[in-house]
Amino acid sequence: MPGQDLTPEEFRRVGHQVVDWIAQYRETIEQRPVRVEVKPGSVRAQLPDRLPERGEPFDALLDDVDGVLLPGLVHWQHPSFFGYFPANASLASALGDLLSTGLGVQGMLWSTSPAATELEQHLADLLVPALGLPAAFGTAAGGGGMITEASSSANLVALLAALHHASDGDWQARGVDRREVVYVSAHTHSSMEKAARIAGIGSTAVRVVDSDPDTAAMLPDALEAAVAEDLAAGRRPVMVCATVGTTSTGAVDPVRAAGELCARHGIWLHVDAAWAGVATVCPEFRHLIDGLELADSYCTDAHKWLLTAFDCTLLWTRRPGVLTSALAVVPEYLRNAASESGAVVDYRDWQIPLGRRFRALKLWAVLRWYGLEGLRAHIRGHVSLASEFASWVAASDDFELAAPPLLGLVCLRARGGDDATRTIMERVNATGRAVLTHTVVDGRYLLRVAIGGLNTERRHVEALWRELQAVRASHGGPEPSGAASST
Amino acid sequence: MPGQDLTPEEFRRVGHQVVDWIAQYRETIEQRPVRVEVKPGSVRAQLPDRLPERGEPFDALLDDVDGVLLPGLVHWQHPSFFGYFPANASLASALGDLLSTGLGVQGMLWSTSPAATELEQHLADLLVPALGLPAAFGTAAGGGGMITEASSSANLVALLAALHHASDGDWQARGVDRREVVYVSAHTHSSMEKAARIAGIGSTAVRVVDSDPDTAAMLPDALEAAVAEDLAAGRRPVMVCATVGTTSTGAVDPVRAAGELCARHGIWLHVDAAWAGVATVCPEFRHLIDGLELADSYCTDAHKWLLTAFDCTLLWTRRPGVLTSALAVVPEYLRNAASESGAVVDYRDWQIPLGRRFRALKLWAVLRWYGLEGLRAHIRGHVSLASEFASWVAASDDFELAAPPLLGLVCLRARGGDDATRTIMERVNATGRAVLTHTVVDGRYLLRVAIGGLNTERRHVEALWRELQAVRASHGGPEPSGAASST
Repeated sequence: MPGQDLTPEEFRRVGHQVVDWIAQYRETIEQRPVRVEVKPGSVRAQLPDRLPERGEPFDALLDDVDGVLLPGLVHWQHPSFFGYFPANASLASALGDLLSTGLGVQGMLWSTSPAATELEQHLADLLVPALGLPAAFGTAAGGGGMITEASSSANLVALLAALHHASDGDWQARGVDRREVVYVSAHTHSSMEKAARIAGIGSTAVRVVDSDPDTAAMLPDALEAAVAEDLAAGRRPVMVCATVGTTSTGAVDPVRAAGELCARHGIWLHVDAAWAGVATVCPEFRHLIDGLELADSYCTDAHKWLLTAFDCTLLWTRRPGVLTSALAVVPEYLRNAASESGAVVDYRDWQIPLGRRFRALKLWAVLRWYGLEGLRAHIRGHVSLASEFASWVAASDDFELAAPPLLGLVCLRARGGDDATRTIMERVNATGRAVLTHTVVDGRYLLRVAIGGLNTERRHVEALWRELQAVRASHGGPEPSGAASST
Repeated sequence: MPGQDLTPEEFRRVGHQVVDWIAQYRETIEQRPVRVEVKPGSVRAQLPDRLPERGEPFDALLDDVDGVLLPGLVHWQHPSFFGYFPANASLASALGDLLSTGLGVQGMLWSTSPAATELEQHLADLLVPALGLPAAFGTAAGGGGMITEASSSANLVALLAALHHASDGDWQARGVDRREVVYVSAHTHSSMEKAARIAGIGSTAVRVVDSDPDTAAMLPDALEAAVAEDLAAGRRPVMVCATVGTTSTGAVDPVRAAGELCARHGIWLHVDAAWAGVATVCPEFRHLIDGLELADSYCTDAHKWLLTAFDCTLLWTRRPGVLTSALAVVPEYLRNAASESGAVVDYRDWQIPLGRRFRALKLWAVLRWYGLEGLRAHIRGHVSLASEFASWVAASDDFELAAPPLLGLVCLRARGGDDATRTIMERVNATGRAVLTHTVVDGRYLLRVAIGGLNTERRHVEALWRELQAVRASHGGPEPSGAASST
């Protein structure tokens, strides 16, 4: 009865109804526009202006989800969503996540729910061989992995470990000393600059190393020169962040070369493979992480392309002791015999927040329901579609590839310049039949087509290509030269 | 079929099965021990040592949840769980959360799913009057609120805003300058020290202001003196963190006095009411937040005592512009017309990670299913039980109150000292019939009894009291004086 917790009987009835609602939503999602134009404030305007005094039946909520929310959402699970990166919320992961909510346990410490921590450790370890990662990331070799909320958070945690490491632990009590430098490329994810701000070293501590103009990959010689210059000037190189699969164009930084340099100078190497990393479940893509055994930490998102509903970032390190030494604060109310024995892992010390959901369960649901074969088929299907799509672009008179495609990401431009390209994106998005997003690289405006949706098939990619051509034919003709602008 | 996403038909079938599994788990939870002793590694030892190549039916997962995981979990939803603070994962919130996973949208920007942001904004605004918060925290008055993962994260975000504010924005590019000071009490949550580390000011920048020995509340005069001393020494007072309901004993810092001081000196006042804050849904508890209109930011956890499954921390600020100016980094691939118009809120700029789940939906489910009356009844019931429990303790020959009880939290000690108290806790926990946790305040070992479970009723509290007395009678007799120890 509304007003108090659902009885088991009510929960069965309403729970089945919610499951059926989701089944129906997913079943009919293609009949919806991927997105529609929404005016700021228009959703709020339809919501009641006070909270109810008395409880309401669940049907009232479902009615408003249908009537008020759905028209104001972008349907990320729609097979014609090609924006940003995919956000696979597979139904298997949804059920694993529901189990976790049903259990309602806290995994901040091993002792607050041992099975939650041990399943998470175990899956992180089993993924080491499954993804072709270096053995040093496994528990047996002194490393370890965990699940955190986002690669942006993992990047921050890596930076904090690096600051702790570079200062021999002084950082913890004394703070940063404003000589620290972190190395990125212009294509590194913006969360790394945000991490530098958060960590108190400021954005001026972020040194942007030159990239190869063709591949957008960080240039090892430029990195070497930057480090040498900083050392000579008395600054302290703390961390290099190498990216495998940048957000803009899928560029791959030279992990091995960066790792060798970092090893020589005692610099922490963090590798951010948020989107692309999960592809190494297929052996043919493991060349992308060549040299990863030299990295100190590594992250990739199961919640992007590995079928696991947000949030589920995987973070591994060869040096868990540095992470936990950097982040552990032990007030009396969290002390317990298991932690003090040293025989267990307390994952709160690997992350920013204290509390932790039992996220391993949704990942376990995915790994078991799909099996490694199923995961590989999912990845390979998209890579193959992207490769086909790229070949159409390359052969076209109207469009051109704007960067070397990587895995499921294809960047293209309309021949004719930035304005034509932007106009085409806006027109395609306005149809509601597909969603694309953009980037700007070296001052040029690019369309990003990220293929990797849960149910994206060949016909959706073909339809996108037809749409691009049609919009181009009707709106996006060549513009006078000199009219291009990237703002 | 395992190996690919569940078809809608499979999802209906398996989804109903998972719902029924949860109904059965919650229905029979009282028949389980709240926790059992688990040997480190014993759960892992029962898990398969490789990931399956081929997908498995969902039943296999459910079997292992039953056979392997359940015996290794602490059952936080058990009505006799009195440890830490409650973690109410109501079934209404579980269904709201399932809807959110089913939708699978990203709310990092308004434009990536407008309805997700607008519902969140709207609920944060409606909670302002519902919780008796100052109008300045509402959007209409230039403030605003949001949902974040944990109060530990909210405390960090508040500190970052404070650093940005205190430096007139210099912090962003130049980093911290090692003159910053943050004020806490010895009873402030440990996440504040962790936040200082993360923010690069180091734990030495955290000044521990004296507390009243009886109430454990921060002493305003001591705060004033500490600020004056730091100003005289050329340091920069950045933030005061006042707690409403400390983790150890439920102490309440003097928010109004701290706010008046902060206003005089231009210091950011953050109020952390992680556990206790939600109680102000009942007007009779609003005296706890007297003076909150002077605070710059405020957080409380719907995922502790307000019936919403983890994670769901509410964070409000009077100065959202400071937060977003501190944390916004805008790479090209996230630029969009709506953000640039200034007419929308992009919640990624209020938090550490970039990605965001649609968490407002589970909170909405709770607020509508329970209604404000239902929420008040939930809180009042526990407060009344705690008050009764405290009266038994006070009247007992074997136990004594160890701190003034607050709301649902009662701290007690066995007469006879620390060892007796610790032994009693360990014995009670070993029975599996209740879970208690401890703290140490002023060198004295205390048992914490946090009453607030989803289904905790009078009979569970009575049973706990009987258990405590029985254990005391059989094991916890008075110890020789001088044998007490707090380590």
